[in-house]
Amino acid sequence: MIIGLDHIAVAVPDFQAAIERFSEDFGLTLKGTEDVADAKTSTAFLPVAKTQIELVHPLNGEGPIQKYLDNKGGGLHHLCFRSDDLEADMKRLTAKGYQFISDKPKPGAHGTSVAWIHPKSTNGILIEIAQYGEDHHD
Amino acid sequence: MIIGLDHIAVAVPDFQAAIERFSEDFGLTLKGTEDVADAKTSTAFLPVAKTQIELVHPLNGEGPIQKYLDNKGGGLHHLCFRSDDLEADMKRLTAKGYQFISDKPKPGAHGTSVAWIHPKSTNGILIEIAQYGEDHHD
Repeated sequence: MIIGLDHIAVAVPDFQAAIERFSEDFGLTLKGTEDVADAKTSTAFLPVAKTQIELVHPLNGEGPIQKYLDNKGGGLHHLCFRSDDLEADMKRLTAKGYQFISDKPKPGAHGTSVAWIHPKSTNGILIEIAQYGEDHHD
Repeated sequence: MIIGLDHIAVAVPDFQAAIERFSEDFGLTLKGTEDVADAKTSTAFLPVAKTQIELVHPLNGEGPIQKYLDNKGGGLHHLCFRSDDLEADMKRLTAKGYQFISDKPKPGAHGTSVAWIHPKSTNGILIEIAQYGEDHHD
């Protein structure tokens, strides 16, 4: 029986830089690394607390997800980190060289404000940052 | 400040079929759906307990991750679900039409046995299923 989501894997061209990115820039903590000879991989694991899978589908057959499906058919699309101060995180990450797709936050699901980092500045990972309203409860 | 991983997003061509896939086939529970007009999306959220991000890099510049990096530069690579009986899950999912990349489990990280489902049978998501040894503790 399947008993949970063990991990979300990200393929990274620079192992140490990726560990630093997810630790220093996105707030995770490195638990450990392991070389897996059979898989010909070096792996690093960074635990995350409870999260969720979001299935995302085009509304009315239009928008960026429709374009993505037209090109790729479907697949892993983005990671979303939660912020308690989106504008401060946008400033902090912009100063570190991350390229946001728009300068201002936009409305997201569940009453969030969201901003998007272009995959060009993350070695290929589209990253959303979301801030929930003050009246939000999980 | 970034305070956690809010979600992992999967773009799906068939919204209802994807909800059924992740619920019935992979054991998650649908929390709710929401149309987000500003983003032109329909979204479904399925909570998962604590998990981890795995950064994966080629060992000695060879193997499937090296090929992936050569083609794409980097990015979201796969989801891994944990099983308590991998062979039974392989039989169950094969009977439902999922196509495993090899017939037998192989060694993975942390002493796991792992099997891989081809993205052709999941609308574009590479899915690993891992079973830990009996002496494993998180």
